[in-house]
Amino acid sequence: MKIALKELARVVGGEVSGDGSAMISGVAGIKEARPGDITFLANPRYQKFMEATQASAVIVSTGTPVKGKPLILSENPYLSFVKAVEFFVPSKNHYPRVVHPAAIVSDKATLGSDTAVGACAVIEEGASIGDGTVVLPGVFIGRDTRIGRDCLVYPNVTIREEVKIGDRVIIHGGAVIGSDGFGFAKDGEIHRKIPQIGSVVIEDDVEIGANVTIDRATTGTTFVGRGTKIDNLVQIAHNVVIHENCILVAQVGIGGTTEIGKGATLAGQAGAVGHIKIGDGAVVAAQAGVTKSVPANTMVSGYPAREHNQAKKIYASFQKLPDLLKRVAELGERLAKIEEKLKE
Amino acid sequence: MKIALKELARVVGGEVSGDGSAMISGVAGIKEARPGDITFLANPRYQKFMEATQASAVIVSTGTPVKGKPLILSENPYLSFVKAVEFFVPSKNHYPRVVHPAAIVSDKATLGSDTAVGACAVIEEGASIGDGTVVLPGVFIGRDTRIGRDCLVYPNVTIREEVKIGDRVIIHGGAVIGSDGFGFAKDGEIHRKIPQIGSVVIEDDVEIGANVTIDRATTGTTFVGRGTKIDNLVQIAHNVVIHENCILVAQVGIGGTTEIGKGATLAGQAGAVGHIKIGDGAVVAAQAGVTKSVPANTMVSGYPAREHNQAKKIYASFQKLPDLLKRVAELGERLAKIEEKLKE
Amino acid sequence: MKIALKELARVVGGEVSGDGSAMISGVAGIKEARPGDITFLANPRYQKFMEATQASAVIVSTGTPVKGKPLILSENPYLSFVKAVEFFVPSKNHYPRVVHPAAIVSDKATLGSDTAVGACAVIEEGASIGDGTVVLPGVFIGRDTRIGRDCLVYPNVTIREEVKIGDRVIIHGGAVIGSDGFGFAKDGEIHRKIPQIGSVVIEDDVEIGANVTIDRATTGTTFVGRGTKIDNLVQIAHNVVIHENCILVAQVGIGGTTEIGKGATLAGQAGAVGHIKIGDGAVVAAQAGVTKSVPANTMVSGYPAREHNQAKKIYASFQKLPDLLKRVAELGERLAKIEEKLKE
Repeated sequence: MKIALKELARVVGGEVSGDGSAMISGVAGIKEARPGDITFLANPRYQKFMEATQASAVIVSTGTPVKGKPLILSENPYLSFVKAVEFFVPSKNHYPRVVHPAAIVSDKATLGSDTAVGACAVIEEGASIGDGTVVLPGVFIGRDTRIGRDCLVYPNVTIREEVKIGDRVIIHGGAVIGSDGFGFAKDGEIHRKIPQIGSVVIEDDVEIGANVTIDRATTGTTFVGRGTKIDNLVQIAHNVVIHENCILVAQVGIGGTTEIGKGATLAGQAGAVGHIKIGDGAVVAAQAGVTKSVPANTMVSGYPAREHNQAKKIYASFQKLPDLLKRVAELGERLAKIEEKLKE
Repeated sequence: MKIALKELARVVGGEVSGDGSAMISGVAGIKEARPGDITFLANPRYQKFMEATQASAVIVSTGTPVKGKPLILSENPYLSFVKAVEFFVPSKNHYPRVVHPAAIVSDKATLGSDTAVGACAVIEEGASIGDGTVVLPGVFIGRDTRIGRDCLVYPNVTIREEVKIGDRVIIHGGAVIGSDGFGFAKDGEIHRKIPQIGSVVIEDDVEIGANVTIDRATTGTTFVGRGTKIDNLVQIAHNVVIHENCILVAQVGIGGTTEIGKGATLAGQAGAVGHIKIGDGAVVAAQAGVTKSVPANTMVSGYPAREHNQAKKIYASFQKLPDLLKRVAELGERLAKIEEKLKE
Repeated sequence: MKIALKELARVVGGEVSGDGSAMISGVAGIKEARPGDITFLANPRYQKFMEATQASAVIVSTGTPVKGKPLILSENPYLSFVKAVEFFVPSKNHYPRVVHPAAIVSDKATLGSDTAVGACAVIEEGASIGDGTVVLPGVFIGRDTRIGRDCLVYPNVTIREEVKIGDRVIIHGGAVIGSDGFGFAKDGEIHRKIPQIGSVVIEDDVEIGANVTIDRATTGTTFVGRGTKIDNLVQIAHNVVIHENCILVAQVGIGGTTEIGKGATLAGQAGAVGHIKIGDGAVVAAQAGVTKSVPANTMVSGYPAREHNQAKKIYASFQKLPDLLKRVAELGERLAKIEEKLKE
């Protein structure tokens, strides 16, 4: 497929600068692009690759001073790049819509139209899979679990019984949804298991990374709201409530019953204890350890997590600590000398 | 099933306060409960839900001042709740005891009586599965591995060869047990693999979370003692020894050959280096980085982990650091002025 | 198999001290060894076990003062131990080279000679598996993925489409390779998925731990260089480049597009943000949070990660912080008294 740059600009949402008649036939990263490709520059760190790129055109932020290449100037170059990829590259979800003869589907399960079920996937009784959903090989879908339309469940995912999953949800390989919450009652030295009789609800348009774990609730539901995106190896404990459009980066851990407000971001390896609330739009920096509730639209960092500007000052002052210790000792000596002198 | 509150109190271990003839027919969380249910209040943070709950009765701690609802007063409300759930909710382990025709069981493997083996589970030669154990779909059980009685192995678990697992062990989805320890010998620039010829021993009543990894020993055994409970995404390296009744919360990592004393607790995302000993009953706070042995019955926190009260003082003093730096600079100026004055 | 100690010394690369005619018939750890075994002492902490061991001989570092046992003195006792294990213990890779009748291999996939494919492994069209490679049960290998010779892929691994894997690569249970990178473009409140159209390249002799996740690139490739060893539960984001012979210990996380120089080491639970470079031979301490590029051959630790000697001084000074605060308050009071006095 070939398209003139000026027409592609309309598709991806931007203005052409330079030769709008340049013909574009593909999309690629700035380092990998070849003649005929369009690429994008969203991170200013990669400006150095601009001169070397073989791309025929580049999507850049409106106002970026770039010369020598035809450009599409966009208010949101990432989003324009998404649209360019969607234009040139067929979706990953084009799996043949068949139930493989080696799939194990209970005759009491319900499959919608245009579903695919891979070899050695197991779908238990009472489960239902919506129209257009693709279940890849080795996936387990437990009793009475409901999965919506146009979902994509990658290989070796485990979804236990009585879980509810919305439409257009993507679940990457090895994720486990609906495992028992980690709850025990002490009985002398022994930890007796608290049966986890609740469930998990995942709303529409959620994406769940590889080897993520989302526990079922003790009672009630563990909840992931519409449009929230979860990276690999994240842990979500029982009865956690995550509202819509949150971002949880890789290896984040959320303690039981904690609530994450809509549009919040938790960066990589951050952790939050149980029974707190992280406010709408809050940002938790990478590796932060959140020990108490975070107000809406606040950024926190460090351990224990504090308001980010305060934390930055604290972490910057660490640098001066060894010197400070010496300096205070020296002040003490000078002070003692003065005190001695004044006694005389 | 319906039971009068006063009879349920006997089952769960507590005293009735209020109307003992109230009929109870189910159990639920305080927010989800409906008329006829009993619920429980173990975390004082949820006292606010007490007034709104539709539950017909509540299990509370002996001495909790609650009015307006029939109560069961219990010394251990969590434990009483466990017993209430066990009374009303059938165990998760009621899987039909059949070997699925699509299970792949070696004819040199041994299955006890009343075992279940799910579709696409693979049990290799020399493996043995004890009476009443349930192996769900997609599980791999390697050569000569022995699993005890009444275990529950959730889907897509991998248990490699020559592992020994006790009775009533629960292993959640995606866990990997018996993978090679991470050991290499440097040979110039190259890391040459040290063959991992040891094994893993898991004792009775252990619970292992989703996507946990437990490596086999270099030689000898990696060991998890009776009654220890391991949350999701925990890493246990080769030759680690974990004694009985420990709690390892999600995303904890234990370095090679480290020993964890009985009844110890490691909170979420904590890490311990290799070759140390964490004493009996010790508590490691969330995200702590343990770099040396911890005495028994001590709590440690922070990085590097220190005795908790000391660490708390240190982390509290961080708050004052930026101010301290200014203050010391100011003291230095005042001191210089005095020194100047005294010279005159 | 039996061999005289003096001949074994030649095999493993060392000098005999003591009775070179002692007959050795096996290899074991220092605590587990029985008469006839050779063991090794590489970690000085285990010197205490030297007297108690039942081993007939011990591999030690050249210069170790040990008496009472026949020894092999080696410049690299770990490496000599590797060679001893390889001499006595048959390799783990001795799986029968058959394609199990319950394996699901596309007739458009290519299998080399002497390959093994386990039950319920799924190999999709266009995939190719090199000579001597073993694919264990429940593994998924996606469309057009190429795996080299003599690899060992443990159960329930997921390798998505169009991934390239070299020779002699070992991939432990539950690992996921080629999952989508975590990339979204903000479109109002909504996070729109940036299609991840790149791939993953894993070079020869790499080892990948259990439940590791390695994401495919947005465009171009995520790259793991020859001889790099990756422990369990490590996260490698899209477009990361890891050069040869690196060591990534358990639960490490690497942010997108970050580059790790050859021979670098990241210790357990360390994290690196995206878009930075960790230099050749650099060492990142356990739990460190790397927020900017690290020069070659430097060690960093702490959060935010700093040069290790500086960080050590800072972390040691924490101990003195609560006292420092008191001391500065006291200096302030003494200074005020002097100022008062001088006013008189």
